[in-house]
Amino acid sequence: MAEKLRLAIIGLGRIGKKHAENLVYKIPNCDVRVICTPVEEEQKYARETLGINDVASDYADVLARDDIDAVFIVTPTILHADQIIQGLEAGKHVFCEKPVALNVEDCVRVEKVSLQYPGLVCCIGFVRRWDPSLVEAKRQIDAGEVGVPFLVRSQTADMDEWAAFQVAGVPASGGIFPDMSIHDIDLVHWLTGQTIDEVYALGGAYAHPEFLSVNDADNVSAMCRLSGGGMANISGSRTAHHGHDTYAEIHGTHRTLIIGSNPSQDRLVIKDKHGVRNTCVPDFFARFADAFLLEASDFVNCCLNGIKPRVSLEDARKATQVAIALRESFQSGSVVKIESLLEIE
Amino acid sequence: MAEKLRLAIIGLGRIGKKHAENLVYKIPNCDVRVICTPVEEEQKYARETLGINDVASDYADVLARDDIDAVFIVTPTILHADQIIQGLEAGKHVFCEKPVALNVEDCVRVEKVSLQYPGLVCCIGFVRRWDPSLVEAKRQIDAGEVGVPFLVRSQTADMDEWAAFQVAGVPASGGIFPDMSIHDIDLVHWLTGQTIDEVYALGGAYAHPEFLSVNDADNVSAMCRLSGGGMANISGSRTAHHGHDTYAEIHGTHRTLIIGSNPSQDRLVIKDKHGVRNTCVPDFFARFADAFLLEASDFVNCCLNGIKPRVSLEDARKATQVAIALRESFQSGSVVKIESLLEIE
Amino acid sequence: MAEKLRLAIIGLGRIGKKHAENLVYKIPNCDVRVICTPVEEEQKYARETLGINDVASDYADVLARDDIDAVFIVTPTILHADQIIQGLEAGKHVFCEKPVALNVEDCVRVEKVSLQYPGLVCCIGFVRRWDPSLVEAKRQIDAGEVGVPFLVRSQTADMDEWAAFQVAGVPASGGIFPDMSIHDIDLVHWLTGQTIDEVYALGGAYAHPEFLSVNDADNVSAMCRLSGGGMANISGSRTAHHGHDTYAEIHGTHRTLIIGSNPSQDRLVIKDKHGVRNTCVPDFFARFADAFLLEASDFVNCCLNGIKPRVSLEDARKATQVAIALRESFQSGSVVKIESLLEIE
Amino acid sequence: MAEKLRLAIIGLGRIGKKHAENLVYKIPNCDVRVICTPVEEEQKYARETLGINDVASDYADVLARDDIDAVFIVTPTILHADQIIQGLEAGKHVFCEKPVALNVEDCVRVEKVSLQYPGLVCCIGFVRRWDPSLVEAKRQIDAGEVGVPFLVRSQTADMDEWAAFQVAGVPASGGIFPDMSIHDIDLVHWLTGQTIDEVYALGGAYAHPEFLSVNDADNVSAMCRLSGGGMANISGSRTAHHGHDTYAEIHGTHRTLIIGSNPSQDRLVIKDKHGVRNTCVPDFFARFADAFLLEASDFVNCCLNGIKPRVSLEDARKATQVAIALRESFQSGSVVKIESLLEIE
Repeated sequence: MAEKLRLAIIGLGRIGKKHAENLVYKIPNCDVRVICTPVEEEQKYARETLGINDVASDYADVLARDDIDAVFIVTPTILHADQIIQGLEAGKHVFCEKPVALNVEDCVRVEKVSLQYPGLVCCIGFVRRWDPSLVEAKRQIDAGEVGVPFLVRSQTADMDEWAAFQVAGVPASGGIFPDMSIHDIDLVHWLTGQTIDEVYALGGAYAHPEFLSVNDADNVSAMCRLSGGGMANISGSRTAHHGHDTYAEIHGTHRTLIIGSNPSQDRLVIKDKHGVRNTCVPDFFARFADAFLLEASDFVNCCLNGIKPRVSLEDARKATQVAIALRESFQSGSVVKIESLLEIE
Repeated sequence: MAEKLRLAIIGLGRIGKKHAENLVYKIPNCDVRVICTPVEEEQKYARETLGINDVASDYADVLARDDIDAVFIVTPTILHADQIIQGLEAGKHVFCEKPVALNVEDCVRVEKVSLQYPGLVCCIGFVRRWDPSLVEAKRQIDAGEVGVPFLVRSQTADMDEWAAFQVAGVPASGGIFPDMSIHDIDLVHWLTGQTIDEVYALGGAYAHPEFLSVNDADNVSAMCRLSGGGMANISGSRTAHHGHDTYAEIHGTHRTLIIGSNPSQDRLVIKDKHGVRNTCVPDFFARFADAFLLEASDFVNCCLNGIKPRVSLEDARKATQVAIALRESFQSGSVVKIESLLEIE
Repeated sequence: MAEKLRLAIIGLGRIGKKHAENLVYKIPNCDVRVICTPVEEEQKYARETLGINDVASDYADVLARDDIDAVFIVTPTILHADQIIQGLEAGKHVFCEKPVALNVEDCVRVEKVSLQYPGLVCCIGFVRRWDPSLVEAKRQIDAGEVGVPFLVRSQTADMDEWAAFQVAGVPASGGIFPDMSIHDIDLVHWLTGQTIDEVYALGGAYAHPEFLSVNDADNVSAMCRLSGGGMANISGSRTAHHGHDTYAEIHGTHRTLIIGSNPSQDRLVIKDKHGVRNTCVPDFFARFADAFLLEASDFVNCCLNGIKPRVSLEDARKATQVAIALRESFQSGSVVKIESLLEIE
Repeated sequence: MAEKLRLAIIGLGRIGKKHAENLVYKIPNCDVRVICTPVEEEQKYARETLGINDVASDYADVLARDDIDAVFIVTPTILHADQIIQGLEAGKHVFCEKPVALNVEDCVRVEKVSLQYPGLVCCIGFVRRWDPSLVEAKRQIDAGEVGVPFLVRSQTADMDEWAAFQVAGVPASGGIFPDMSIHDIDLVHWLTGQTIDEVYALGGAYAHPEFLSVNDADNVSAMCRLSGGGMANISGSRTAHHGHDTYAEIHGTHRTLIIGSNPSQDRLVIKDKHGVRNTCVPDFFARFADAFLLEASDFVNCCLNGIKPRVSLEDARKATQVAIALRESFQSGSVVKIESLLEIE
């Protein structure tokens, strides 16, 4: 039987619980030793629902332990940068949910530290990179089946009922671009092998004017120029009524790929007075359930076998840089050039 | 400019009006000289809506005219056999809506007469043989692309709101098998090149018990053995809520063909609280609008150029024979063999 | 933390390995204590791939152990009946892959024994009852949303490349009806709440004549009369080229449900010179991956909490009875009535 | 019988032939009196294929005739403006294919003349406004079913095999924006009721570098700011391999509409070794066959009944203005504001 990775889960909020369920129950070579959270409800959940009795309140205590190989960080974004750095400095492999930070400086800070620990895995959770449909798309691109991929169109849409919740979260999330579109940005970078170097973003608060008060939007769409001459169109929406609708198109000179044009819930089609129809996945947890498991499992594997993770800190930094540029373009009404994508030496 | 076929339309009911619209307006080499109907409303329609002022009440008068090359019969089924015979005997090409008759004897009677007029076209309106999707399916079968077609599944479903109307019509229509399933029967014969020689039919009045009083059903499904060893499954429904749903599958040893799994109204998809959905064609006129035009146009062409029509009286007779067998099986609860498909010499 | 079910897996062939992967890794309240198989390759797999070092060759040894609560039987069909009986008599909960037996007598024998152990769970693996799409269909039926479900059409199709393998297996599998169509039979029973009481089955060896030599077919289709007046059409194919194609339609007086009209592999659509297309799931493992896990998890749950399982021995016996009738109908060319569905008292 | 519009067709090239077929054969209240073209092949086609023996070489001769009510102009773009003006000045109703002109000045010139002839219909052929799917989308928007439409995504894609032909045509067509995207521009204007007032366009010659030599692209994509705060994404492609792919999305606060996500050729789906697939319409003639007929028929109707046409010269001028701005943005790499959409008084 293979060795197990001894893991600490840091944070057990809404998305943390999803990760924990996978890590505790569904990944055989992962041994969740401790869950770290100061929140009482989450500590109770760890003990009663997950059966993990070893619960810590203090991240430092976890890092001090010898029996922990890796930390899996699912805390508020504002904590990410420091917690990654502390984890690495304590000699732990690190997985951290996206985004690393809401500013490029923090991303750079983390990246510089990580360069001192080449033996430690540090993976950022751009979960779409593990979605089987997108992985197959990437395979076809890399195999040349798509020809030159010259245009990527990527959209994320959340259900309208969550909008109010999102307004309140803007100060912590950074708004729709760093919070939601960052997934689409990373997807474009990953699929094309190019980076976005100029953006023009539009948007508005079409259904929920309260987004204006936080200088954010309920719907945005942007055109992006890619470093290699390609194009990308990135859209984000918080007003979908049919379900969570993550959608991507990759246009190549040989083939076009479409991923998720119908975000169907299952394989059931209903024919009734409303027409021919299907219901849709309600949220990204449902859409990316497989990918979340594959992501965590891959991280464990990378740690145990010394494999470079699929997403690097450099990828994460570039995504943040573009997200900020998009927000700046949206807020200023102008094209924003991303003059020099920093190179860390 | 090509010669024109001088035509008389016989009957101008619901389906007659559809044919007339095509014949009068959309088929350039067709010259509708006269419309024959004893019904006042239909005569008015001919004059005012179609602009055909030459209206006759008596079929014999039409047949006596020298300036008529062909008759296009869209009258009640009970009149078909005699009207076809009279038309042929008057030296006219004949198009007649399906079915030729509700009994095999009448079909044979017509067929025998027609054999005496080999120079006259006599075409029966199994409209699906002109549907572009089904024509392409047939092309693929004939080209060997499907391999051996061993199973055809063919279904016709009308909207539930028409059911009451259908109950009243059973005495004249012969019930669901000769009226509706006859299309599916002919389709099976045409696509496979085999004939149905044994049937086992089930059914019931699941939504509209009044069908029981006329010994008919609102839904039926039958398994059919084909002369060459193939299989067919034929279903009919009068209780669809989403639209008219004509559907066919052709299973071959190389390929499966599906025609009409979603009877979409147009190319529009709606994403809203009901899910991802499309509306459907309401009736067979909408589903087969193209085919009706192609059918009539092809008939005109066959007449003008001495071409054998796509559907023969033999085809029509065989379809009627199977329809009657299906009804007998449904009513008796037993398998019915179609002992000898008559050969007319 | 919840109690765990202490389990023995009996048999580790192709499908056994799939079950074992779920039971060992993905079901937290299941503790696989021992794997029982006389096959050396399977014993090696248990130790090296599954990390289960406790491997037994003899079923009796497993049954004698006090630390085993349940047995999970995935052995050849011919062993099922006796192994279920022995398991129950040893006081173990039993899960057994379908079918229970290739004859009704054995089914009855098992059923009679089980009635003496009302406290023990005995569940048969008709996996489709755990498929999320079919479960949702069943929910809609039970909630009355479908109206009266009067026609079920259910099809299973395996890829052509497996046909040769299937020919060889006919003596042990009982042929296409008990081996493949039994899933469709159970589905019809479950979805409608009616039982099949008359069948008329056709079929042929259209692509692989070698099936004739074992009195079996590569494609079959049957019409079935249901006890409550409903209808079912069941088809089986071993000659699909696009993938594994399990498909079902449920026609009700209010709504039609379609499950799996496109057996897509993932959410990726390709637009290229072949048209607009998607690839398909290769086999039923891929199609029912979720359902296999849910099935095993549900069994564990039923055992731990004294819940009646979703599939009973009575269900399994009825399915076998119909499968045999279908085979008899296919081989005799006649309708077969299932005179009295046995009631065991 | 209704009065007929006495019509002259001006130009009988590739698209002219399509229009002529509709006008001559399929529109009952249209009487094609003369076809005007200096091209010998086209004159021959008029006589032999269309059966119109009255063929003119000189537009002035046609305009001088008293028995012509309307002209239907399908000539090279460079002739449009003058021919429209001459037609109006001769007292004829005018239909003209898009675009009116390749510069705004000519559009304005035409528009000013037309204001002097309020009794004459002058309709420009933005054919998508008659496509049944898009008309239904517009109906839903106008009925408020979509809520506020805040984002339109519109794409036109032609098959790769036509690319070489397009390169040669750039001098006359003005390139991809005035020739192809102008349809998408008009669609955005029509569907939203807003006008595009700022654009940012990207593009490249990804498959056919020869487009660079004429300062054009084989693929373009642009983000557009709308006058009312909305957004539009317009794309054009000349490198599709699957077929002609005209696609539109309308995102509203209540509903999203998708038109044409699968440009299927017909209702036939093939399941074979390439997966589950369908073939696609080869060109815009096939995609918009219905719309072309409805467009011409509507024009005839407008003329006969004094109805304002669906597309005005103002609409055409605005579309040209945006097309030119898009081209400028693409060529300069900068955002282009459309400062003042001219108002003609």
